[in-house]
Amino acid sequence: MRTFIIDRPDQELREKLVHKIDNLTKPKGSLGKLESLATKIGLIQQTLTPELNNPHNILFAADHGIIEEGVTVSPKEVTWQQLSHFSHGGAGINFLCEQHGFKLVLVDAGVDYDIPAGRGIIDMKVRKSTRNFLHEAAMTPEEFDLCIDRGAQVVDIVHAASCNVVSFGEMGSGNTSPSSMWMHLLTGIPLADCIGAGAGLNNEGIRHKLDVLTQALENYSGDGSMKNKLEWFGGYELAMAVGGMLRAAELGMVIIIDGFIMTSCVAAAAHFYPAVLDYAVFGHQGDESGHKLMLQELGADPILHLSLRLGEGSGAVCAYPILQSAVRMINRMDSFADVTVTKYF
Amino acid sequence: MRTFIIDRPDQELREKLVHKIDNLTKPKGSLGKLESLATKIGLIQQTLTPELNNPHNILFAADHGIIEEGVTVSPKEVTWQQLSHFSHGGAGINFLCEQHGFKLVLVDAGVDYDIPAGRGIIDMKVRKSTRNFLHEAAMTPEEFDLCIDRGAQVVDIVHAASCNVVSFGEMGSGNTSPSSMWMHLLTGIPLADCIGAGAGLNNEGIRHKLDVLTQALENYSGDGSMKNKLEWFGGYELAMAVGGMLRAAELGMVIIIDGFIMTSCVAAAAHFYPAVLDYAVFGHQGDESGHKLMLQELGADPILHLSLRLGEGSGAVCAYPILQSAVRMINRMDSFADVTVTKYF
Repeated sequence: MRTFIIDRPDQELREKLVHKIDNLTKPKGSLGKLESLATKIGLIQQTLTPELNNPHNILFAADHGIIEEGVTVSPKEVTWQQLSHFSHGGAGINFLCEQHGFKLVLVDAGVDYDIPAGRGIIDMKVRKSTRNFLHEAAMTPEEFDLCIDRGAQVVDIVHAASCNVVSFGEMGSGNTSPSSMWMHLLTGIPLADCIGAGAGLNNEGIRHKLDVLTQALENYSGDGSMKNKLEWFGGYELAMAVGGMLRAAELGMVIIIDGFIMTSCVAAAAHFYPAVLDYAVFGHQGDESGHKLMLQELGADPILHLSLRLGEGSGAVCAYPILQSAVRMINRMDSFADVTVTKYF
Repeated sequence: MRTFIIDRPDQELREKLVHKIDNLTKPKGSLGKLESLATKIGLIQQTLTPELNNPHNILFAADHGIIEEGVTVSPKEVTWQQLSHFSHGGAGINFLCEQHGFKLVLVDAGVDYDIPAGRGIIDMKVRKSTRNFLHEAAMTPEEFDLCIDRGAQVVDIVHAASCNVVSFGEMGSGNTSPSSMWMHLLTGIPLADCIGAGAGLNNEGIRHKLDVLTQALENYSGDGSMKNKLEWFGGYELAMAVGGMLRAAELGMVIIIDGFIMTSCVAAAAHFYPAVLDYAVFGHQGDESGHKLMLQELGADPILHLSLRLGEGSGAVCAYPILQSAVRMINRMDSFADVTVTKYF
């Protein structure tokens, strides 16, 4: 796997950021999460006047061998159908990107279908679907490394287009299964607490999913390293998101984390480079108990709680106006020194 | 007090709204709160294609006699200073209104200062500050009724400017005290649970505030009716907000409720006309335990949880992009009938 250079942002500026925010014309602390977000973004950009430019939502799509075991209600063809749909507009992520000025970048990471050219979908297909990790490794180490490289490449493209804030989304029938495995492996939280309904499983379906994933863990016969386990139980779109997040952090970009699946990806990224978390803001906490546990484990303070469970980057893009508010606050509000208002706190 | 005609929106359309939303290209229910908001707004407007037009944030400012008892850290002059500041831009509510395309309407409901003309602040001053309700009624019944009328008048003005979505904000040193009294009176929740830090009281300050308000309740010598109690312990800006909310509901507008203080106002509005709640969406739940209790009492499902405690309408305006997302969802997403995507839920 390629090397990234990801340093924690210099913390020396923190005091100045806090001082600036505390002297804006409001009771101290009264803009709550806008204040903590402004501090974080200021630190990432190492400035008292941060800016968010040209946001992109990079959506990786792939299929999963584990779907053969009946772990999801979504049929496999939904992956390519939805990816195609995104390229035409009219899906969930389209109206959100349009609303908030995001460019939507669609990437075929490993969809089990020949996507026609000419629709603006970037072809980074590693293979048509991962293998079924109940019986064998979902991907080879070489495929994992390739995903890291390609995810990073896509971020290079958007960074070259003056983008300094990026979110990641995914589409892949069955991809809560690899996400749950990653969460379990990375956090040590019992597998049963890492599994939810995905796109809409009932209780029986969730029990079956737990049985399949438990058996898959028992069948594992790799070298025991964390990297090997992430490969074994991974997904191409997940691994590409990891590569994208690492490169974004290396480039000093603000990373907006979407829901459960992208949270497991940033947890994986943080396994390799813990400082990636200093570049990440968490857009949305869903209702799945596993997501909440993982966010706590990461020390995350999610922005929104809207009971979304769509994926595609929707929770991250929905949270963007709150980031914009944070940046406007620190740039546009007067300080008590500027105006005749008695400091009241 | 004038009469309003506020009917519950016809519920017959609900089934059609839910059907439309359920058939958008996503797993059923996966856009969570966007779906419930779209249903609510569709019902208010009685259409499957709702629109949000020309939003306004109406900010009422006033002073409070109870401030003489040391119930807040904000000095009284902050009320007029901040109102003046809002009219120049550069305060918290200004950058939020600018970001989300809100017109900010500033109303002097009862500020204890001669506000210079020519700054676009609407003069609806009832009196320079309410009286000190520790010793006497804060306002007369005639003043309360006048506030209801004037609040309604301001809504008429914005409605005439093609506005169909409105939020209300406030500025008034000491105005969490009347709000806490209203909350206690309207919900029956013990006074101690209705009191918080306001702009930044410490524990000792909160204890003193509770003592003062408890004594004020004991000193009450009105006619015992709810309306009389709301007058006795009220504020001019609070009563105008009640009038504004009632008129907005009468006109079929979407009302976005801000934080603790505006929640106590909509509770008061709902005491007179319960159907007002069918027109209200709750923008923000703050950290004060009292606010959470009151929201539960009203059956509210707040959109944001950002630990804001600024007032001014900030929590309501911050939540606006989520309402816009809900409306975009129902208008712009394809249904499964439109595209080749297997229905997956």
